[in-house]
Amino acid sequence: MKVVKFGGSSVANAQQINKVLDIFNSDKERRIMIVSAPGKRHPEDTKTTDLILQLYEKVIEPSDYQQQFERVIERYADIINHLKMKTSLLEDFTRTLHQYIQEFKQHHPRLLDALLSCGEDFNAQLIAAYNTSCGVPTRYISPMEAGIRVTDQPHNAQILETAYAQLFKLRDYEEKLIIPGFFGISEQNHIVTFPRGVSDITGAIVARGVEADLYENFTDVSGIYRANPAVVHAPEIIDEITYGEMRELSYAGFSVFHDEALQPLYKHRIPVVIKNTNCPEDPGTRIVHDRDIDTRTVVSGISCDKHFTVLHIKKYLMNRQVGFARKILGILEDYDISFDHMPSGIDSVSIIMRSDQIKHCENEVLTTIRNQCDVDELSIDHDLAILMVVGEGMHRIVGTANQITTALAQANINLKMINQGASELSMMFGLDLEDSDKAVQVIYDQVYVHEI
Amino acid sequence: MKVVKFGGSSVANAQQINKVLDIFNSDKERRIMIVSAPGKRHPEDTKTTDLILQLYEKVIEPSDYQQQFERVIERYADIINHLKMKTSLLEDFTRTLHQYIQEFKQHHPRLLDALLSCGEDFNAQLIAAYNTSCGVPTRYISPMEAGIRVTDQPHNAQILETAYAQLFKLRDYEEKLIIPGFFGISEQNHIVTFPRGVSDITGAIVARGVEADLYENFTDVSGIYRANPAVVHAPEIIDEITYGEMRELSYAGFSVFHDEALQPLYKHRIPVVIKNTNCPEDPGTRIVHDRDIDTRTVVSGISCDKHFTVLHIKKYLMNRQVGFARKILGILEDYDISFDHMPSGIDSVSIIMRSDQIKHCENEVLTTIRNQCDVDELSIDHDLAILMVVGEGMHRIVGTANQITTALAQANINLKMINQGASELSMMFGLDLEDSDKAVQVIYDQVYVHEI
Repeated sequence: MKVVKFGGSSVANAQQINKVLDIFNSDKERRIMIVSAPGKRHPEDTKTTDLILQLYEKVIEPSDYQQQFERVIERYADIINHLKMKTSLLEDFTRTLHQYIQEFKQHHPRLLDALLSCGEDFNAQLIAAYNTSCGVPTRYISPMEAGIRVTDQPHNAQILETAYAQLFKLRDYEEKLIIPGFFGISEQNHIVTFPRGVSDITGAIVARGVEADLYENFTDVSGIYRANPAVVHAPEIIDEITYGEMRELSYAGFSVFHDEALQPLYKHRIPVVIKNTNCPEDPGTRIVHDRDIDTRTVVSGISCDKHFTVLHIKKYLMNRQVGFARKILGILEDYDISFDHMPSGIDSVSIIMRSDQIKHCENEVLTTIRNQCDVDELSIDHDLAILMVVGEGMHRIVGTANQITTALAQANINLKMINQGASELSMMFGLDLEDSDKAVQVIYDQVYVHEI
Repeated sequence: MKVVKFGGSSVANAQQINKVLDIFNSDKERRIMIVSAPGKRHPEDTKTTDLILQLYEKVIEPSDYQQQFERVIERYADIINHLKMKTSLLEDFTRTLHQYIQEFKQHHPRLLDALLSCGEDFNAQLIAAYNTSCGVPTRYISPMEAGIRVTDQPHNAQILETAYAQLFKLRDYEEKLIIPGFFGISEQNHIVTFPRGVSDITGAIVARGVEADLYENFTDVSGIYRANPAVVHAPEIIDEITYGEMRELSYAGFSVFHDEALQPLYKHRIPVVIKNTNCPEDPGTRIVHDRDIDTRTVVSGISCDKHFTVLHIKKYLMNRQVGFARKILGILEDYDISFDHMPSGIDSVSIIMRSDQIKHCENEVLTTIRNQCDVDELSIDHDLAILMVVGEGMHRIVGTANQITTALAQANINLKMINQGASELSMMFGLDLEDSDKAVQVIYDQVYVHEI
């Protein structure tokens, strides 16, 4: 069986919902659908989730929220009208919103999670009712009924391992099932939203729970590009990529499929395919455990993310001092900073982190390191871009590193850092911000256009 | 003024001592000499330090040590006879050895330090007396008199910062001074030897103390080779190298001058020259704070050390987990392991250390990491060679990395790791053991023979 998930733009209006149901109904293996809240219908539109945030702001101000309330309901009214459905569902939706506002108006974090859940929840109810009315027996299943049990901290749901056994029972239904994405229910029976990745994570959890043969993730692109199409003209779409490669690419800026959603899948080797709702016949990108590697696809993709900061620390005879690096990392931990890389020389170490990790406490961190660690030199550089060249086969092919450094040298790009080897499937380069787009272009050309 | 230090082979016999004194006396700026214990006179010879160790073993056994005792005295008798000196010094030496054995026979660590100090100490007394008898007023200064005050832990002397002010007073002597290397005196008035680098460290401490203009370190080679002459045929000698470069080269196997001896010098920018006692007119290698860089000398040297072990750790979403790396390093610290590098991927980290750091406790370390850190994969690789390409100018010249990876790729050498950037003056490559000599050769050819 297959679990299919549709993103916000795929379920933004009646026309899109009909496309989505054609896809869902056309394959009897597609037995469970995860839906998002209605997204933008056109570039200037406001997506439902943002309408709900506006409603929430008014409620907690507190201020008159009637107008914001109605704009949320109108989005669903618009869909229901175009689908020519009965309007009784709208009365349910109105009642639910009112109920959440009354119940949680003194508990803002709970209120926010409850209101946000409506975006997906109403859409799931609506689409299930519509599909049934079209003659396909379809059942709406709430996260409570499905058994998507999560931890209780607002906006930070983590699935409980015990949930999976309950989710497996979804296999027993005769009807097709539609489940809203983005939230679960805590053991204290609170609605709690997932921190990132919106509905992707629900799809992944359900796919693992029912032990699906495939998790189909429908979006508005026909797969994952080998490089950012804003940087490289018309890049190729990746046909097949491993979980590990996907994670490395996501890290440095690829955002089509949230890498955290891979976590429930990779241990059980449930493959994912990223497809386009508007071109469902396109093969899309498959995310799998192992892939075949030919010389042309050694490198699966190239990504670059620009928002990194690096701390440089020098201390003579650093490598002889047991515990020095641990002490520095202990200070970062005290400030709740997670770092990404720590390349080192004999007497020096650089610690690379996302700029948002340290921005709010930079001076305190520098002062604490100076006071506690007796360093010879300490400096900070905010303008680092991290370029990742990702490919499972790279390390077995002598000279791949050389092909890439050649392309960069010919383009006169200075490498501030190179880190290769810890991960078997990527090479990391530290670059000046201003070189980053050019670097992606020349490596893309070297690897895919000139042939490696 | 200049401080000069002579290594063991330079003061191994009467003929060498005459050479050394010709050098010392030929330049009136050479006012302080640091001497080593007599080294090997020919390849099959035993150096004095090893004769003393044999004596020590017999004393602590305890067993009859008369024969070992006499062999030590004979080394000095041989020199005294050849120099046609009076033998009264030998009686002093005999008395001193007996006294140390009596005083410390129940305190083995103190006994070892006291006996070892005799190797250098007797030679300094002898050479000072001889030079005076030749008409050059020369004074033996003991480390006690000089003020080489050190910490009290046996075999692990560290100079006390307060010693330098006392050492500065050595400038006041009219005579030439000869000081034995290798040991200092603790504030508890114990003889304590330096842990590494034998007499180099004494020379560096004295040179800093007297604020010398130059520290001349005489050995049996005419300087530092750009690569190991056992690997590369007749490599060039480096004319000038910075402290930082020297340290990086020493780290990975260059052993002409012990890198720890640079520590007292580098902050005060006292230059060092490595020269050959047997060819004192050769210019040698100067170790300085800054050097001029031309395109031919961007890379100052290439070294490779073979005895590294690497721990590979994989954990999904590692980079999101604040404190994960610190936890691993805390475990290493518990086992008193100092690591050298820690290259990382998104979900993986490799920790590189010298094999002798972990050999004795490998299983315990692996078990502790498994038990405490919830890792996905953990493996260990013992066959890692670390190749360092060192040069102050490398990072300012685009394409240096590329020249090197090109040479390695053409030689079909697989790079297990690349780490560039934390140190501004080196690139590190992780290689298979079996590739290490070939790698040094091809990079040497690329950089110095073909011209970079």
